This record gives sequence, C-alpha cells and structure tokens, in this order.
Amino acid sequence: MDYKILSCIKSPDDVKKLNNEQLAVLCEEIRSVIIETISKNGGHLASNLGVVELTVALHRVFSSPEDSIIFDVGHQCYSHKLLTGRFEKFSTIRTEGGLSGYMRPQESEHDPFVTGHSSNSISAAYGIYKAKSLNKSKGTAIAVIGDGAMTGGMAYEALNNVGNLKAKFIVILNDNKMSISKNVGSISRVFTKLRNRPKYHTFKFAVSRLLIKIPFIGNKLNDILYSAKEFFKGVVYRNNIFSSLGFNYLGPVDGHNINSLESLLKIAKVYDRPVLVHVVTTKGKGYKYAEDMPKDYHGVSAFDVQTGTGTATSNSFSDVAGKTLCKIAKSNEKVCAVTAAMKSGTGLSEFAAIYKDRFFDVGIAEQHAVTFTAGLAAGGMVPFFAVYSSFLQRGFDQIIHDCAIAGLPVKFLIDRAGIVGEDGETHQGIFDAAYLSTIPGISLYSPCYYRELEQLIQKTANDKELCAIRYPRGCENNNYSGEISGDYTFIKGVNSPKLVITYGRIFSNVYDAVGELKNIDIIKLNKIFPIVREIFNLVTEYKEIHFYEEGIKSGGIAEHFGNILLENGFGGRYIIHAIDNEFVPAAHISSSFKKYGFDTDSIKATLLS
Amino acid sequence: MDYKILSCIKSPDDVKKLNNEQLAVLCEEIRSVIIETISKNGGHLASNLGVVELTVALHRVFSSPEDSIIFDVGHQCYSHKLLTGRFEKFSTIRTEGGLSGYMRPQESEHDPFVTGHSSNSISAAYGIYKAKSLNKSKGTAIAVIGDGAMTGGMAYEALNNVGNLKAKFIVILNDNKMSISKNVGSISRVFTKLRNRPKYHTFKFAVSRLLIKIPFIGNKLNDILYSAKEFFKGVVYRNNIFSSLGFNYLGPVDGHNINSLESLLKIAKVYDRPVLVHVVTTKGKGYKYAEDMPKDYHGVSAFDVQTGTGTATSNSFSDVAGKTLCKIAKSNEKVCAVTAAMKSGTGLSEFAAIYKDRFFDVGIAEQHAVTFTAGLAAGGMVPFFAVYSSFLQRGFDQIIHDCAIAGLPVKFLIDRAGIVGEDGETHQGIFDAAYLSTIPGISLYSPCYYRELEQLIQKTANDKELCAIRYPRGCENNNYSGEISGDYTFIKGVNSPKLVITYGRIFSNVYDAVGELKNIDIIKLNKIFPIVREIFNLVTEYKEIHFYEEGIKSGGIAEHFGNILLENGFGGRYIIHAIDNEFVPAAHISSSFKKYGFDTDSIKATLLS
Repeated sequence: MDYKILSCIKSPDDVKKLNNEQLAVLCEEIRSVIIETISKNGGHLASNLGVVELTVALHRVFSSPEDSIIFDVGHQCYSHKLLTGRFEKFSTIRTEGGLSGYMRPQESEHDPFVTGHSSNSISAAYGIYKAKSLNKSKGTAIAVIGDGAMTGGMAYEALNNVGNLKAKFIVILNDNKMSISKNVGSISRVFTKLRNRPKYHTFKFAVSRLLIKIPFIGNKLNDILYSAKEFFKGVVYRNNIFSSLGFNYLGPVDGHNINSLESLLKIAKVYDRPVLVHVVTTKGKGYKYAEDMPKDYHGVSAFDVQTGTGTATSNSFSDVAGKTLCKIAKSNEKVCAVTAAMKSGTGLSEFAAIYKDRFFDVGIAEQHAVTFTAGLAAGGMVPFFAVYSSFLQRGFDQIIHDCAIAGLPVKFLIDRAGIVGEDGETHQGIFDAAYLSTIPGISLYSPCYYRELEQLIQKTANDKELCAIRYPRGCENNNYSGEISGDYTFIKGVNSPKLVITYGRIFSNVYDAVGELKNIDIIKLNKIFPIVREIFNLVTEYKEIHFYEEGIKSGGIAEHFGNILLENGFGGRYIIHAIDNEFVPAAHISSSFKKYGFDTDSIKATLLS
Repeated sequence: MDYKILSCIKSPDDVKKLNNEQLAVLCEEIRSVIIETISKNGGHLASNLGVVELTVALHRVFSSPEDSIIFDVGHQCYSHKLLTGRFEKFSTIRTEGGLSGYMRPQESEHDPFVTGHSSNSISAAYGIYKAKSLNKSKGTAIAVIGDGAMTGGMAYEALNNVGNLKAKFIVILNDNKMSISKNVGSISRVFTKLRNRPKYHTFKFAVSRLLIKIPFIGNKLNDILYSAKEFFKGVVYRNNIFSSLGFNYLGPVDGHNINSLESLLKIAKVYDRPVLVHVVTTKGKGYKYAEDMPKDYHGVSAFDVQTGTGTATSNSFSDVAGKTLCKIAKSNEKVCAVTAAMKSGTGLSEFAAIYKDRFFDVGIAEQHAVTFTAGLAAGGMVPFFAVYSSFLQRGFDQIIHDCAIAGLPVKFLIDRAGIVGEDGETHQGIFDAAYLSTIPGISLYSPCYYRELEQLIQKTANDKELCAIRYPRGCENNNYSGEISGDYTFIKGVNSPKLVITYGRIFSNVYDAVGELKNIDIIKLNKIFPIVREIFNLVTEYKEIHFYEEGIKSGGIAEHFGNILLENGFGGRYIIHAIDNEFVPAAHISSSFKKYGFDTDSIKATLLS
C-alpha cells in the first residue's frame, strides 16, 4: 500500500480537511500500516485497530496540542501517533531509539502525559485542564479511557473529584467490552446495560440530524451552548453510574462511524459541564483474526499478516508458575490464585479453568487485589497473587499496611521482574527488589531457572511467611545443571581472590562468563532478602567482590549486601553493577543487557579487567 | 459513672441478652467511657461517638468472631473494643503496651484485620468472606465503611469485584456526611440524595413492622429468605450507584435507633445477594462540643470534658508549611496546593481560604492526588501535594510512573514523616526516605527547623525538579542558632576522630548530645537524596562514623551513604542507628526515641562508649 492520504497528514490540521471519502481511505491506510508494522515489531494490535475512527474524529473535532488528548494505558495511541506527524517514524515503534508504544511527552507535543499503567488518564487530564484554566490558556483536556481501565479505583477517584466541576470536562469511554481479556466486575454489566438501552438508534439519528445545524466552532458559541443545553435535556441519559458521579452521559455511539462520532464529540465540546461520551468499539476491527480473537491479538509478537500466525510462544516462567500452582492446588485445597486482569499473561488460564472456585480475577485493581489476597490469607487460605512487577507498585501501601503489619502469609508471584524490553520505561520491573526489601518481615526469592521457580512455589506454599517470588519475562536459559537449593548456591573455584554475587536470571550470564574464565567464585542468592548472615563468613577474605543486580541500584539488594560488608569490616573492593538512577528505555532485552553490562561478554570483560 | 452494664459485657453474647432499657443505658455508658478516656489519652472522639448504636446493633445481629466485622480506618472501633472484652483495658488505649486506637488482630480475635489506612475494609472483608465459604466455615464478613472512605478508589475496586457475587455479602455505609472534615466529590452528593429520599420514613416504619415477624435466626431460614426476597422487591431502592455496582441498597436508616438498625441488619443478614446498608449517623453524637464541631473533635489531644477545651495546639511544621505556601502563592500565581482530605491536618486551611482557585481537596484518594498534581505540573503550574508520609505509600506507583518518568516538577510536602506516636504501626512515617530514594531523578529534603522548612519550600518552588520535603509531626526544638543552608551543614569540633551524620528532627538531639561531649563532628544532611558527593571528601579520615536515621534501615539514606563509603574505600567503623526490620508500635514519641536510641541521652551514651 502506498498510503497516499496518510503520508500527507503532517499534523491534525490536515485531518480536518478531508472529506468523507478520504476519511474512509485514511482509516483503511491507518489499519494497514498498523497491521503491517506490528506484524514485524510486535505490539498492541487489537486495541489499536478498535479506535481508528475514534482517533480520527477526535482530531477533527479537537485541536491537539492546544487540546490535550490522553489515551489511557496508551496501548491504543498508534493512530494518534500516525495523525500527529509520526507516520514517517512509525516503522521504528517499539524499537531501541524509535517511537514508544505508549504516550511519551519527550516524543511529541501531542503526547501530553506519560501513559502505560492503567486508569491514570482522567487524573492527568483533569490536572492539565485545571492548569489550562488557571493559566487562561486555550484548549481543554480529554481523557480516552477503556472499559477495562474503568475497573481501576484511580479512575473512580478522578471521576468523583471531577464530578463537582461547574465547567466542561470530557471523558471518552472506549467500550470494547473487554480489558485485555474478558472484562470482569459489576461495572462491565453497567456498560452492557447502557450499550443496549432501547433509545440507542433513535438517539443516534436525532444527534446526527440535529448536529447538522451546529457548526463546528463559531462565533455564536453562546447560542450553540444554549441549544446544546436544551438539546441535552432531551438526549442526555440520566440515572446511571456516571450521572450519579456528576457526569452528563452521552451515548452510546457507534465507534466506527466517523460522522456520528463527530456529531457527539461536538456536543461534548460545547457543553459546559463534565461529559462522558460512551463510544462502542470493536476490538481488532478490520483484521479478521484480531476481531475473532481480540484477547489473543491484544499484545502480540511478530506474526504473519496473511495467516495471522505468530512465532510459536515457547514455555515461559509464567507458564511454569501457573502449572506449578495447578499441581499444588490439587493436593492442597487451601491454595488460591488471584490476578488483576492478567489471567493469561501470568499463566493462570489453566488454574482458572480447573480451580474455578479458587481463582479470582478482580479487574485492573492492584490495591484491592493485594488486600483481598490478604483477606484470603487472614481467613486461612494459601493465596498467591500473580502480578507484573511494575503493576505491583500500585499495591505498595497495601503490602505494608494490609499484609506485613499483621504478618499475613500472603504470597506474591512477581512476573516481568527485571528488564522487560520493548514496552519501555513504564513497564520495567526494576524497582520491586528495592521497594519490597524496605518492608519488615518479608522474604524475597528470585529464581533463575524453571525448576527453581517450581521448588520455590512449593516451598513457600507450606511456609507461614509473607513472601514474594520474582522472575523475569520470557523463558529460561538452562545452562547450569548443578543443584540449587537453600538460600544460596556457592560455586567455588580454586583459591580465587574474586567473587561475583548475583541473583535471578543474570546468574546464567555470570555462570557462562565465569565458566570461561575458571578462576572466579560465584554466590547465587536464591533467597535475596533478608540476606542470610552466614554468607558473610564466606566472603570476608576476597580481594574483590562484584555484585550484579538486574534492578535499580538505590535501595537494591546489592546495597543491602554492601552495608553488611561494611559492618563486618570488609577490606576489599566492592563493585555494584546495577541500574543507577535512570529509567530503562525501550530496547530488546539483550540490548539493554549490553548497556548495563549484564550480558556474558560484558561480564567477562569486566571481571578480566 | 460506675458502668454497671458495660462492666458486665464480657463478650458480644452479653450484648444480645439486654432489653431496650438496658441498651439505652449501655449506649450512655459507652459514650461516657469514651469521652472520659479520650479526654485523657487523646484519640478519635467524634467518629466513635457516632457509631455507638450501630456497633451495639451489629453485635446483637451478628456473632463476632464467627462473623468478622471490619471497621474501615478503625477510628470508630472503640465501642467495638468495649463490647468485645476490652472494657477493663480501655483506659490504656493509645498508650505504650495498651490497646491500639485501631483494629489490631494481635489484640483480639474480634479484630479480624488491620485497619488504619482508609478504604481497605471491603477488600479485606471480601477476602475473609471468600475464605470462609471455601473453608465451609460458619459466619460471614461485614465491612463498616464511612462516606469519606468511599471516596477512596480501593473501595470502588472492591465494590466492583463483589458486585457480581451471587451470595450474601454485607457492606454498612456509615454516613455521617463527613470524612475528617467536610466531604468532597460527587459521591457525597449521591449520599445526600439517598439520605433525603421521600420514602425514608415510611420505609423505616414498614421495616420495623415487618421484621417483628422475622425471628433473629431460626430453622426456617429458607422461608425467611423467601419472605425477605419478596419483601425486598418492595423496599429495596434501585437505581443508585450501589445498585449499578450490583449491590442491593437498603436504607437509609437512623443510625441512632437500635431497633430500626437491628431490623434492617436482620434483613441484610438473610438476603442472598450483596447488600449495602445505608446508616445515617451524627458525628460526635451525645457530646455537645463534638456534635457542634465534629471536624475539631475528629482526632483530639487531651481535653477538659466540661468545657471541651484542649491544651492549646502550639505552632507546628504543618502550620509553617501552610503559611509558607500562602506567602509564596502571593507572589507566584503558579503555586497550587493539593490535599487528599487532610486540609486542616496539613496546615492548608488558610491557603484554602485565600487561594480558593488554586487549592484542591480531592478526597481520600492519594493515587488520583499524585497524578492530578502531576497534571497540574505538566500544565505549567507549581503544585505542592501536602500529604502524610504513611498515606503517600498509596501513591508510590504514581510517583514513579506519572511524575518521575517524564521528570515533572511535582513537589511533595510530606507531613508526619518519622515516628508519629500513639497512632502506632499503621501511621508511622518511617518508609518514605527509603521508598522514595529508589526513584530516579527525585530530590529529598528533610528539615529540622521551621526556618529550614520555609527556606526549602521557597527554594523548591523555583526549581524544576521533582522533589519531596519531609518533616515530622508536631513542633520544632529550636536549639541550634547556626546557619543552615546548602545541601549539608558541617559542624566541626577539634581534631575529632568521630563523626555523626544525621538528618531531620533528630539532628537537634544529636546536636545537644554532641554539644555536651564537645569532641565529635556532625554533618547534618539538608538534602538527603541524592547525597552530594563532596561530603565523601570530608569523611574519609574519620575512625568512626555514626549515622542516625529516624526511619527504616533497609534502603534508607544511611545505607546509601554506607555504600558510597564502601565504594570510596572507607577504612573506619560505620554504625547505622535506625529502625531495623520492624514496625514501630504505639507509644509516646519520646518513648520510641528512647527505644531506638534517638534521644539525647541515648545518643550521648552511644557516642561515649
């Protein structure tokens, strides 16, 4: 495809000039370039295909960057990127130095706020909106948020705060009937009811008819406002959760009909109170495979466009975690599994199918998830909350307050710990070891291999301790056949003056590097916190100790270790190799490993020098 | 008063045996002992006086501990403590080794879960409920949550999760029309509407009449269930936010009429779907001063029962923060202040009155507060979010994701940093230095004196950096007249081999201790993170360095400092004095200081040895 319209869109202004026919072609081209690019780079597919018309309509009715448009999570902002001057660079999306897969203010003035984690868009947009009005700047701020993200409490906190506003503020509900997988919780039922309300079709008709008479934006703004308000009396649907919260509910509208969308957005634009526009979209729209299996095509690796088939996903730490939970749940009726809308991502699909009663998907709601899990533990169950490292940051207070103070034996399975690759800054799991190790009474484990993960899940299920097992995205590099058990594994060379300490996945790189050098000792921490004291008896005599940590340096395990060295009067050199005071940008994991010196070659070079 | 009924209540069973007349006396006695005790010990007054009848009714209809009753926040659980075998010990509430001012599982089997932070009760109760039903244990779990706590997103996450349940689950909404101060946000409007719905009185009447026929609990449970369901069809009020979320709404009911309360709770008890019981209470009920000024009598220090007057509150760090913000807001129109329902507690009342447009109380909603503040910063304002240290834990992810990744110049004013005293474990501000110092690009400051706090607020308002200024509860001990400016203050003795490093409030103790010894040097960190490198040039020659930190050791500033010592080949002794791997229980601050060696005498003794 030669993208003859898309290639001419240098800014949103160009989108405003197109006629209906051109718009149809534009949408086709957008879909095509997204499918083409994601089939190579991997990324979010189904969510992006669902909002093509919505994004086009937004850019026709509003004026970015004067109007700040914030796409919640940002996994549906590809069309937005294509319409805001980033078509040329689009092939670089989710590659090192290329475009981000989310909204990124450093990338463009059209990305007003960082997105990546769910449910923050209304809060951010409201802050920007308030700043604009205090600064008397032109423009407004608009949050585009999915029905899945609406299960996050943060979105509700924001709605509750905005609801008292006596001025315009616009939230677009992008309702595709799913979060990443099937949506859960009662709020999704609310959306279904609204979606199916009888007035739908008449309403659409009325809106399109009436809005022919309302110009896009004009000098007669007051008149329009008046008509819009009068009009609203008839068409705004009251008595739903959003109207309870002080929002005027507008919709639902077919999210694939640009004209209807524009009509409704224009009303929202002139109304002088908070408005929620309910847009019904089809996830994966326009690509057969994604429409049929939106869950499987939410986030994808490279795939074949014609057949829809990707490179077969091999076994992963997530799978092993899920399978092990199934195994222990069979003999231990107390074992439960909790997820916050990441059933498949955390490997729990099989568990969910077999142990329906003991599986809990609580929605995108990490705060609740942690405390609910703590409640299960308080009630005598053995609950595991499987969660991505960077998302667990949302539950930090709950781990301290609801788990640790009472010493409840809650178990965390922290997936995507460490560097995650192309998702970039927002999704890196580099903080968990640091922030969790501030919490009294917690134990942290970090396996390198599947067999270790399995052992650890089995062991901790029988313990009464609050603990977390953290493991990386993807699969193991099973290069070490020795036994791994207990709190640490000591691999001793011959009279070596150098020692490397490490944990987690990068042990395999250290092992390979040292294997080639042959004269350096290794301690692999299996339990990474608290560090068992007996290790210090083993290390006092070394001249040089290197600690490799795939995580943030400040507050990390290496710093804790350093302090105990200092306390014990260690006289040698101690060198920490970790991520120091920076966020890790998107890149292939192997490339980030090189950057931070975590790959086998870099480790070898460092240890030789 | 001789508490003749209350003193006979050894367990909730005894409450069930009382007749109406005795119940009235019981409630009077409960109020009396609460007022009497809190007038001496300080504590939460108005919130506890508001739920006396509700608590009595709960213990008559349900059977704790078989039924788990969780009081959200817990600042209204005093009646519960009095009715569950803790009358004898009640005089020890909020004292060292005495009863906690919140729910505390270690204290009693009737406290099923830790409370202290807002909005966690529904999540915890639902977890416990699910555990009970999986274990086939008897009993249920009930969350008692205030209208203020309902502004917290976590409560919404839980309601959304519970709403799909096809079984009984009970939430009691204790609606006293306030959180700590006047409630904010649109949800409070929802409550007002519900409170005022016309059917109120008829409904009350119908319920009491009908329930005479429904025995408390019997063998005819199925029949009752049937009648209750039929009955519900008539009286359950649909079409409100709770019914949207899948709850059957029951109420409102007069929260000071035990008979009405019991009637309604009995219906809730036999109904087989999630139920929300709306109880309308009067904060401060039964004590004139507290009823008239519930905000001022929410949490109190010791006071005179007859006159209602307390010991005059002296100036505090909070006041200074608020006054300084007012001062800079006058000349800088960009300065904004945000609070999460803690206007008065964080000293912002004056700012709120003068700069109405630039003041934002977002409700008990720390996640939203952080990101909303970040939005203000993204829009070019200079926003300060004033928040208690332990509550900011709720916004940890948002500080990383929404502030730090984009490097937004958000300013945090962290009040109640360090040890807070009688509120105990749940409220200690001992983690902030540790968890915040994991975040790339953040700067942390910790003043010891008012003049420092003032300087720091002025300085950071002009900086473009993401930063936090942390300061303790209460007032300064202004014992040092020297200049404090720059990143650190070096107080040098004569050829001393010993150095003490510290920061924040306990500098004043270190200064006093060293002043009496005269031969020890001090470095006071003004900027505590990142630690400026030039300090290391000053410290290499010391034989012994003591670091005093009023915070958690693991991941704290002292550990960061230790690592740089190690990196720089420091050969002397390094001793950290901090809180090591434990939660700090309730006690007077001075007593906790002694325990951890932070008081002047302990420091002197340590340095001498």
